[in-house]
Amino acid sequence: MNDGVSFAVHSVNGAARLGALSTPRGVIRTPAFMPVGTAATVKAMHPEAVQALGADVVLCNTYHLMLAPGAERIAALGGLHKFMNWPHPILTDSGGFQVMSLAKLRKLTEKGVTFQSHVDGSRRELTPERSMEVQRLLGSDIQMQLDECLRLPASREDADRAMRLSLRWAERSKLAFGSQQGRALFGIVQGGEDSALRTESARALVDIGFDGFAIGGLAVGEPQSVMLKMIETVIPRLPDERPRYLMGVGTPDDLLQSLSRGVDMFDCVMPTRAGRHGMVFTRQGRLNLRNARFADDPRPVDPHSSSRMARDYSRAYWRHLVKSGEILAMMGLTEINLAYYLDLMEGAREAIAEKRLTAYIEKTRRGWLEGEADGGR
Amino acid sequence: MNDGVSFAVHSVNGAARLGALSTPRGVIRTPAFMPVGTAATVKAMHPEAVQALGADVVLCNTYHLMLAPGAERIAALGGLHKFMNWPHPILTDSGGFQVMSLAKLRKLTEKGVTFQSHVDGSRRELTPERSMEVQRLLGSDIQMQLDECLRLPASREDADRAMRLSLRWAERSKLAFGSQQGRALFGIVQGGEDSALRTESARALVDIGFDGFAIGGLAVGEPQSVMLKMIETVIPRLPDERPRYLMGVGTPDDLLQSLSRGVDMFDCVMPTRAGRHGMVFTRQGRLNLRNARFADDPRPVDPHSSSRMARDYSRAYWRHLVKSGEILAMMGLTEINLAYYLDLMEGAREAIAEKRLTAYIEKTRRGWLEGEADGGR
Repeated sequence: MNDGVSFAVHSVNGAARLGALSTPRGVIRTPAFMPVGTAATVKAMHPEAVQALGADVVLCNTYHLMLAPGAERIAALGGLHKFMNWPHPILTDSGGFQVMSLAKLRKLTEKGVTFQSHVDGSRRELTPERSMEVQRLLGSDIQMQLDECLRLPASREDADRAMRLSLRWAERSKLAFGSQQGRALFGIVQGGEDSALRTESARALVDIGFDGFAIGGLAVGEPQSVMLKMIETVIPRLPDERPRYLMGVGTPDDLLQSLSRGVDMFDCVMPTRAGRHGMVFTRQGRLNLRNARFADDPRPVDPHSSSRMARDYSRAYWRHLVKSGEILAMMGLTEINLAYYLDLMEGAREAIAEKRLTAYIEKTRRGWLEGEADGGR
Repeated sequence: MNDGVSFAVHSVNGAARLGALSTPRGVIRTPAFMPVGTAATVKAMHPEAVQALGADVVLCNTYHLMLAPGAERIAALGGLHKFMNWPHPILTDSGGFQVMSLAKLRKLTEKGVTFQSHVDGSRRELTPERSMEVQRLLGSDIQMQLDECLRLPASREDADRAMRLSLRWAERSKLAFGSQQGRALFGIVQGGEDSALRTESARALVDIGFDGFAIGGLAVGEPQSVMLKMIETVIPRLPDERPRYLMGVGTPDDLLQSLSRGVDMFDCVMPTRAGRHGMVFTRQGRLNLRNARFADDPRPVDPHSSSRMARDYSRAYWRHLVKSGEILAMMGLTEINLAYYLDLMEGAREAIAEKRLTAYIEKTRRGWLEGEADGGR
């Protein structure tokens, strides 16, 4: 791995690993959940609170930051860590996913993708080289190669073509990344829902050589079983001594199922986005606090949470705040959800160390069923 | 005063007073600024943070809470303090001002006012007796009589009629309040911009007898000089041994000018509302952080603020967050403004104790002029 970055597996339990990804800005305990801080802020959270909840690293979005306020501007202001007052590790994505999901008038070529900014309508270009330049300007600790994120469902031909383009971009990304002391570059396995393509992608990326390997293009609408099958296909092709990152996943159950299959890192907007919409994750399942049945409910959201927001306020209060559109609802429920996700990872790490991950997962799932959840898990 | 409530003046400097209003839930150091927590939340703030900034008391709105989630509901849940997790003193207004400014289809009679809820369109009634009942259900520490809040400009005849109606409602409010141990009831001086009416109102309220006296119906568009003249008219008619509360005021300069004339308590949405709209109060005047000139400005908002939000982040970061509509902008700028208002009161209290209030006010005003404020003070 790059100088100043290292990964160590301290304990295994089945395929699951307890590890530590060390960077000059701090150690990321794995399995790790990375809160999403799209535009240089984890929405509705003070950065000190994100860290206090147990987050070792946050993810920021290259696409958003290159459009506003701009990577060169952030660099001139001292880099992204200083800009957002988060001195701990930051992972940036490549921008490819948002170009595909947010930008208009996209045009994909071998060179890269041109698109229209959703902020000001300006014409922009994202190439592997530009993505790496933006991530370097931001000063990101963990940088991602540019890949083509296919919209599903896609034909095998499209998945094949996108996977091969992503491999060529992986090589260009690595060249553009160069050698940045104390920073890591991850490759991204693509290949849709096709085991053979996924295997080929993983092998080729390992040959190119990266500090870590991500699995991309999953949790985009396919059944959980398909996602898990792809994880089971890819993980054995990846070197044990490198971290594995499942991008954009997922529900608490997705996380437990995936880490038990050897995934080390996760990011997802689910806890933060759900919190802004009145939905909370608890040890007894999900609650939709918009629901009228909470109007007179004096109970806390989750008395075992590590967040005071879940312990010191009634469900009736949150229901009132959600209904009234109060900002504190978004603040408090976001915190409750991040605490839940981060506590879940902490519990998984302890369980792996004590070789009781299966029991931990079973107990956690039983808890969800005991509750009065408004939805699935 | 009511059992369990007391007010002591510890020091005077000209007409200004350093005092303490003591309640079973805590001591309110005066001059005091009360952050507004309309719907049982100081918008965009954790309650612990409001207290940490130096607030001894918050104001909540009877009108909003009686409509949603309902006073009886809050009482069944253990009262407003528990509901909003604010164990410190709470002042509630009477609901009269919001009925006049927010409700539709108002009909005013001797008995009270009927109106249509702006929440669900239901027909509601607010009388002196109902206002006191709601405030009692909420469990408010400082309760306000119902008064008629006249819209200005108003004729002398209207001001006269509204003042006399408010006096009759004052008597009914006092009767309905009864004797609540550890809680205070304030009367409200009305009379528009007419010194004779204000004097008559003050004298009559003193005869009825209240634990404190508010001055209402000011800062509704009149020049500051008119407001100050009304304060100078009313204050000498009020007993020295009771707290004086100027309702809904105002700018930092309004506060300094008013407390130097003997006002003890203030509330205003200005710091919280301005913060949600990108405007901050600093020791060097106001800044509108939407302004493009802050896009590359690495300086903190106010290095001498007691809020880390004003010290640890650049103006460029806040400008980015404001422009991007990020919730952290509302959280951070609200905190900066509340810190400014509460620090201003802390400074005034120290200055009164040391008999140097005039110098403190002059120095504070000079600071505003030194800056690069985007607006007036």
